[in-house]
Amino acid sequence: MLTLRKNLYRILETSTGKRRGISLIFNSVLLSIITLNALAIVLHTVPDYNRRYERLFYDFELFSVGFFTIEYLVRLWVCVENERYHHWFWGRLRYIVSTRAIIDLLAIFPFYFTLFATDLAVVRILRLFRIFRLFRISKYSHAFRVIAAVINDKKEELILVLTFVVFMLIIVSSVMYYVEHPIQPDKFSSIPATMWWGASAMTTVGYGDVYPVSPLGQLIGGLSAMMGIMLFALPTSILVSGFSEHMRTRKGSPRQRCPHCGAEI
Amino acid sequence: MLTLRKNLYRILETSTGKRRGISLIFNSVLLSIITLNALAIVLHTVPDYNRRYERLFYDFELFSVGFFTIEYLVRLWVCVENERYHHWFWGRLRYIVSTRAIIDLLAIFPFYFTLFATDLAVVRILRLFRIFRLFRISKYSHAFRVIAAVINDKKEELILVLTFVVFMLIIVSSVMYYVEHPIQPDKFSSIPATMWWGASAMTTVGYGDVYPVSPLGQLIGGLSAMMGIMLFALPTSILVSGFSEHMRTRKGSPRQRCPHCGAEI
Amino acid sequence: MLTLRKNLYRILETSTGKRRGISLIFNSVLLSIITLNALAIVLHTVPDYNRRYERLFYDFELFSVGFFTIEYLVRLWVCVENERYHHWFWGRLRYIVSTRAIIDLLAIFPFYFTLFATDLAVVRILRLFRIFRLFRISKYSHAFRVIAAVINDKKEELILVLTFVVFMLIIVSSVMYYVEHPIQPDKFSSIPATMWWGASAMTTVGYGDVYPVSPLGQLIGGLSAMMGIMLFALPTSILVSGFSEHMRTRKGSPRQRCPHCGAEI
Amino acid sequence: MLTLRKNLYRILETSTGKRRGISLIFNSVLLSIITLNALAIVLHTVPDYNRRYERLFYDFELFSVGFFTIEYLVRLWVCVENERYHHWFWGRLRYIVSTRAIIDLLAIFPFYFTLFATDLAVVRILRLFRIFRLFRISKYSHAFRVIAAVINDKKEELILVLTFVVFMLIIVSSVMYYVEHPIQPDKFSSIPATMWWGASAMTTVGYGDVYPVSPLGQLIGGLSAMMGIMLFALPTSILVSGFSEHMRTRKGSPRQRCPHCGAEI
Repeated sequence: MLTLRKNLYRILETSTGKRRGISLIFNSVLLSIITLNALAIVLHTVPDYNRRYERLFYDFELFSVGFFTIEYLVRLWVCVENERYHHWFWGRLRYIVSTRAIIDLLAIFPFYFTLFATDLAVVRILRLFRIFRLFRISKYSHAFRVIAAVINDKKEELILVLTFVVFMLIIVSSVMYYVEHPIQPDKFSSIPATMWWGASAMTTVGYGDVYPVSPLGQLIGGLSAMMGIMLFALPTSILVSGFSEHMRTRKGSPRQRCPHCGAEI
Repeated sequence: MLTLRKNLYRILETSTGKRRGISLIFNSVLLSIITLNALAIVLHTVPDYNRRYERLFYDFELFSVGFFTIEYLVRLWVCVENERYHHWFWGRLRYIVSTRAIIDLLAIFPFYFTLFATDLAVVRILRLFRIFRLFRISKYSHAFRVIAAVINDKKEELILVLTFVVFMLIIVSSVMYYVEHPIQPDKFSSIPATMWWGASAMTTVGYGDVYPVSPLGQLIGGLSAMMGIMLFALPTSILVSGFSEHMRTRKGSPRQRCPHCGAEI
Repeated sequence: MLTLRKNLYRILETSTGKRRGISLIFNSVLLSIITLNALAIVLHTVPDYNRRYERLFYDFELFSVGFFTIEYLVRLWVCVENERYHHWFWGRLRYIVSTRAIIDLLAIFPFYFTLFATDLAVVRILRLFRIFRLFRISKYSHAFRVIAAVINDKKEELILVLTFVVFMLIIVSSVMYYVEHPIQPDKFSSIPATMWWGASAMTTVGYGDVYPVSPLGQLIGGLSAMMGIMLFALPTSILVSGFSEHMRTRKGSPRQRCPHCGAEI
Repeated sequence: MLTLRKNLYRILETSTGKRRGISLIFNSVLLSIITLNALAIVLHTVPDYNRRYERLFYDFELFSVGFFTIEYLVRLWVCVENERYHHWFWGRLRYIVSTRAIIDLLAIFPFYFTLFATDLAVVRILRLFRIFRLFRISKYSHAFRVIAAVINDKKEELILVLTFVVFMLIIVSSVMYYVEHPIQPDKFSSIPATMWWGASAMTTVGYGDVYPVSPLGQLIGGLSAMMGIMLFALPTSILVSGFSEHMRTRKGSPRQRCPHCGAEI
């Protein structure tokens, strides 16, 4: 019994030791099923495809949920092999509340819930949860891990700068509301509603559904866009510098040599 | 008497010495009230909330103005403890005209003014002044201080570059006016009106309410956007480099020292 | 015979040796014809010009195809002078399937095909192939080669980052679809259709044909644009750093040497 | 006679020697008149102001043209004091064809021309020439000179990159034309017309007057915007790096010290 659990653990989680070959195959299969799920979730919403391949989509959904359910239960069974989740009960509980296991669960549990749901609105929301299956790719994607590491590295600066961005968004939208509300009461109906304009202007998206028409409003609008460009450059440059630092470290940059003693730093 | 004033000064302003604990509590309470005010100002404009919680909004307004008024008067009383405002009369006068005290005053005085104002237009403008309560957060926000320091540091370059941006905006809008006015006299009605298009094009917002339709106008429009991207990159990069310099200095630059020989690089 | 082939090869391909002068003249003529072709392709689509100069466009097309066909055949004949395509048959076959020769062929073959095509839709698609004549400029453009080199240099990082961009586009569009589809079923008709909005929002283009109207949708829309700005900064900075590295290398980095002691810094 | 000419030359051009004080005053007066002209040109186009202050605008125009004409003639008379324009005839001719003198002339000559012009269309174009008066500010603006120096410094790279941008704009627009023309023949009417869309998409302005509607067109549209962001980052970064190099040189950067011998570079 113990040997089977250990073997399964090695296949599912560590990808080391004698079972490395099988582990690679399993991971490839899993990744393929997740990718096919992503494709199914996206194409399922196209009325044409949905009508024509309804049966196929349903069968694939059943197969996927079945596969992911078994996978979830097996992972839960073998997780105690990991030192972090060693205890047969508390360890498994700790595994269940780990971010990864929650994402895994959210990817399957809505399906079982829809079987009993009768309210259409609830069913629709539960469908949204299928997007969590997409997030499962993140575990296998190098890109995802790099970005996550960079964000984690620069957390402090990013929060500082984004706080300021939000603050300026509120200020700009409040001023714009008082200037444009009397002229366009339906478009700049309230400060929260004006923040939609503010976000659209400061990110320079400019959909064109709301825009100031008074000269003062247009002056503020122009300044908001200029300010937006400069403000968003701050989190952007933090992310970029974090990313390039990450890349440099990974490559073992030859530039990191002390010019005084010649030793590598 | 003197001891009370000194104590209050320490609690309100310096956050040092024996009264540090009380000072922290007071600052937290103040920051909470300001944040709640921000929320009230924003939500107050949503017709639904305004109708339902009119009483609550009004009571909170009364409480806030009362609190801020007392706070303002106490700060005015204790400010003479600060060496900069030492004189009992001239010191207080100098405190009153300091940026901070003016913001504090602008956050409360409009309320008293509205009690006597009968003109609705005036009342509306006075309401706008409540936004100054938002600016009071800036004193407590680290992010705000960092940005202010960076802008101050790079003032000279920023002014130089923004002058050029404004100059190019005038040139581009003037040329566009002469090209598009004969074709779209209502949209490109004057050079100041065309500057709204110019700001929208050069910041690449592009709301779509005004755009050139003649081939020559479209050529100028395309070039304006390209020029805008390149021009706005200048103040942006100045801000970004100022910000990263600030961040590096604050961290004490641990990278700029060789770990082997200790020499600075 | 061999001498003629060798001479032609030198003129067409290497631009070295005694035939350098003729080679330069030939290349200039070829570049002029390609540039004129580009102009013809672009202006040909303007109804006015097309009507007025139909005969001229047609004659120039005949001349161009004739010239390019002879050039293609001559290049095919002389390519065996190159060591890579030495064998009289297999060498020529390898030359035919090289990227350059395929572009050259795609620039002429559609013309011959249109002579036999009766279906108008096919003729239209074949016309599109004339754009490949534009790509022939790339061989002579320094700019094109620099960018290609930079992209090749940074391939790995660019793929990593663009993978993440595509992934986030799918996530953002999926979430937006589930939020906005019930309200605007015609605009957010499916996830692939919503990806058009997603691309427009994340690149901050914002045409204004599709935009969220629900508060939740607008919140996601605002965050998407902010995320887009930050995400697209990553491939951009990779390209920029690759480009500046390339430029620095090409200039032989005169800054990286101390003028006093001669040591590299 | 010579002394007067020399004195005037010093006042108008060199701002050195004994006449420095008068020179500063004259330059201030000139700059004020130019600035007022800029204001007049801009406000003149606002129907309201034009109607109300028509007389004032006209009088100021007369005064400005008179002042600039005298200034132009005096500069032409004294220019021979400069070694570059030493010869009494050929020197003055060389001065007349210098960029600066041409701008000065273009700022006044259209006024005299309008006196004889009867065609309204010609008058309108001649009015456009008044914008050249704005360009006269450039001589006194530090910002303008810095940007000009940076552009001149990076000329080569900028041309290389902008060539590629134009090339990609043609390719993208050509492909889009063939894809969208059959569906929206009025909006994507020709390749030159489609280039307006292309410029709007690649600079991420996105006015929303033209946008692709077919799935293939939207895919190309999304990719164009992504490509645009990355491509425009190249000239932008060249300009930014040129600007920061310029700023660093001016400040006498302390970082330019050789780590081997310690000498400044």
